[in-house]
Amino acid sequence: MQMSFDYAPFFRADLPPAAARWTGFPEYNFVGGHNDADGVPVAALADALTNVMQRDGKRLATYGMGYGSLGYGPLRDCIAAMLEARAGMATDPDNILITTGSLQGIDLVNGALLAPGDTVIVEAVSYGGTLSRLRSLGVDYRGIEVDGDGMRTDHLAEVLAALKQDGVRPKFIYTIPTVQNPSGTVMSVQRRRELLSLAAEYGIPIFEDDCYADLLWEGERPATIRSMDQAGQVIYCGTFSKSIAPALRIGYVVADWPVLSRLLPLKTDGGCGALEQMALAEYCPSQFDRHVDELQKTLREKCRVMVGALEEQFGAAAEFSAPKGGIFIWVSLPEDVDTDQLAKAAAAQGVLINPGSEWSADANSGRHRLRLCFGHPSHETIRAGVARLAEICHDEFGVPMRSANVER
Amino acid sequence: MQMSFDYAPFFRADLPPAAARWTGFPEYNFVGGHNDADGVPVAALADALTNVMQRDGKRLATYGMGYGSLGYGPLRDCIAAMLEARAGMATDPDNILITTGSLQGIDLVNGALLAPGDTVIVEAVSYGGTLSRLRSLGVDYRGIEVDGDGMRTDHLAEVLAALKQDGVRPKFIYTIPTVQNPSGTVMSVQRRRELLSLAAEYGIPIFEDDCYADLLWEGERPATIRSMDQAGQVIYCGTFSKSIAPALRIGYVVADWPVLSRLLPLKTDGGCGALEQMALAEYCPSQFDRHVDELQKTLREKCRVMVGALEEQFGAAAEFSAPKGGIFIWVSLPEDVDTDQLAKAAAAQGVLINPGSEWSADANSGRHRLRLCFGHPSHETIRAGVARLAEICHDEFGVPMRSANVER
Repeated sequence: MQMSFDYAPFFRADLPPAAARWTGFPEYNFVGGHNDADGVPVAALADALTNVMQRDGKRLATYGMGYGSLGYGPLRDCIAAMLEARAGMATDPDNILITTGSLQGIDLVNGALLAPGDTVIVEAVSYGGTLSRLRSLGVDYRGIEVDGDGMRTDHLAEVLAALKQDGVRPKFIYTIPTVQNPSGTVMSVQRRRELLSLAAEYGIPIFEDDCYADLLWEGERPATIRSMDQAGQVIYCGTFSKSIAPALRIGYVVADWPVLSRLLPLKTDGGCGALEQMALAEYCPSQFDRHVDELQKTLREKCRVMVGALEEQFGAAAEFSAPKGGIFIWVSLPEDVDTDQLAKAAAAQGVLINPGSEWSADANSGRHRLRLCFGHPSHETIRAGVARLAEICHDEFGVPMRSANVER
Repeated sequence: MQMSFDYAPFFRADLPPAAARWTGFPEYNFVGGHNDADGVPVAALADALTNVMQRDGKRLATYGMGYGSLGYGPLRDCIAAMLEARAGMATDPDNILITTGSLQGIDLVNGALLAPGDTVIVEAVSYGGTLSRLRSLGVDYRGIEVDGDGMRTDHLAEVLAALKQDGVRPKFIYTIPTVQNPSGTVMSVQRRRELLSLAAEYGIPIFEDDCYADLLWEGERPATIRSMDQAGQVIYCGTFSKSIAPALRIGYVVADWPVLSRLLPLKTDGGCGALEQMALAEYCPSQFDRHVDELQKTLREKCRVMVGALEEQFGAAAEFSAPKGGIFIWVSLPEDVDTDQLAKAAAAQGVLINPGSEWSADANSGRHRLRLCFGHPSHETIRAGVARLAEICHDEFGVPMRSANVER
């Protein structure tokens, strides 16, 4: 088709830049929440779907499958049971809203609560997708320092007091308490209590993003913050993207009806994918726990390979704590390494990394850090990719000086 | 959980009213694009998914399944082939964007093109979901009269000239040319040419919503407007919701890259449901045509039952043209019947209808009209529901005077 019509005068003035054409994943892909390909329970999901379709397939003929806009009833029942068993959180299935990944949950919560000029509290290092969403909504965010026990509640107390002094009441405190993204830390139970207590004192909702909690392999999974809350002050979201498969696009929001009833009118998508909901509802009750145990072993092993490759290739130049679960590691390089520049140089050579600036509330403070995802690449790809990254980093910044015991 | 936290000060001031709790479908449900339950190819979809999962299931481990954000490659190939064979529209699969139902397609196109205060052209009676979206975006719309040949291009010419006089350039002309919603009419080829020519003359994009075209059972399916366009001036959307099942949530936008590349950055959902995309890609090439032939017969028969019930129960009080396809019929009652009031009274007695005001660009002009969907209810439910509706209408407005040959 010959193109001549000019759409330029028709597009909104504030659109993001045009997308580039898709050219496939790069050779060494250390970004994105992709998961281990062999870990996807492909046959079991197909079998589950075949079963549930025999029983319930005619429901596909109606929007919402006869369950209304909260989502497929058996899946909400299943999630409620899983949250109780795995996260110590008793939940009424009618307080669960199925969403198109946790991303839609974040969008719905943001859409109901946030207006331009609002302020939100986040962890000082946090999920890049949340930070970019907040920026595009015109919302300010303040980062709270994170240590090995998660968000530092002493720092939170300071920031809340200072904001109050300035007459600013944040709209919510966004936290990823368990396998924090990107730091991989787990908020201690004590800190959870303190956080809840501060939120109550200042009268501020908490938005608990628990997307990685099923992948915690070290230590016991702490009770969710929402489960400790008696006042309905915590909005919670989770997902099957990390535990089963990201392409399924099924997440969930847990909140009380006064909140859900305001989110629902913003969910104008006609429902989430029916086959995903049905397959998960059938698969999870009998197989989720065992599957996730296996997946954790696989990821833990990949994490070990990633840690080994970083130590071998970067030596003392790379500082990190091995995460307690999940699919990513957060690495600090020497202060003079600019990971925005490193990411660009690496991308040109087939290595994708997340520069720390995009994962930091204060972009500058993250500029010598990077996030590396290890869920999808094979052991060999991890080793070769980290070696290539070290070479590129050396070429750009002169560090690491030595790697794999060879002077560069 | 005891609720005490008050979210009221936190919600945006401009939120829609809170949702009501789901209480199930009513006894007589004549609203919503639900489809015939026995017509859903349940077993064949499950089999298709089992097949494709064996081959391609590991792709679930990555966002986009390795195909980028346009959607699953084999499904785009399949849609391209179907559009060429069924709609006379040769299409590059890279000009197809898979969406979460056509609703997401509409949202993306609106999001890229519309700002508050903009003007859009629609058919005088049109899809309520589009009209409500335009209203909530703060966009004005002007309705063009529809007759048996679809949008009246003589009226369109008048309106475009008048708008130009006023210095208003509409952002696009939204049309449902084939099995128009709600009128059920089909735009003639001659009118399509005239529409395209007017759009070219005034330099205005066309947004062609072809969601019902696969359900056309009377006459030949006309070529799409987009297929007649040499300039890339037409953005097209379609769906599997009406032809396969609404709960699948798979639709598509067809447009040239200069348009798609601006829609993609607005699609921040992490992709559409993978199982749906895979199942459809596997099922459709060999089975779609035959399935839709069968579905058309079922729907045509239900339409016949609906027409019979309306004639029997409403007699001369109901005016309508039997639709040429689809799942709904558009009915005019005497001018003094207010269908907003009728819809309310009927809902209280278990009969849901779409009042004409919600399906009309000029709400007032539609106030004595209504839309009745017949895709989902059984023959018996259609007959009993229309009888109940006639009784309610008689009780409220004194019409119909007679029904089923019995004086009321």
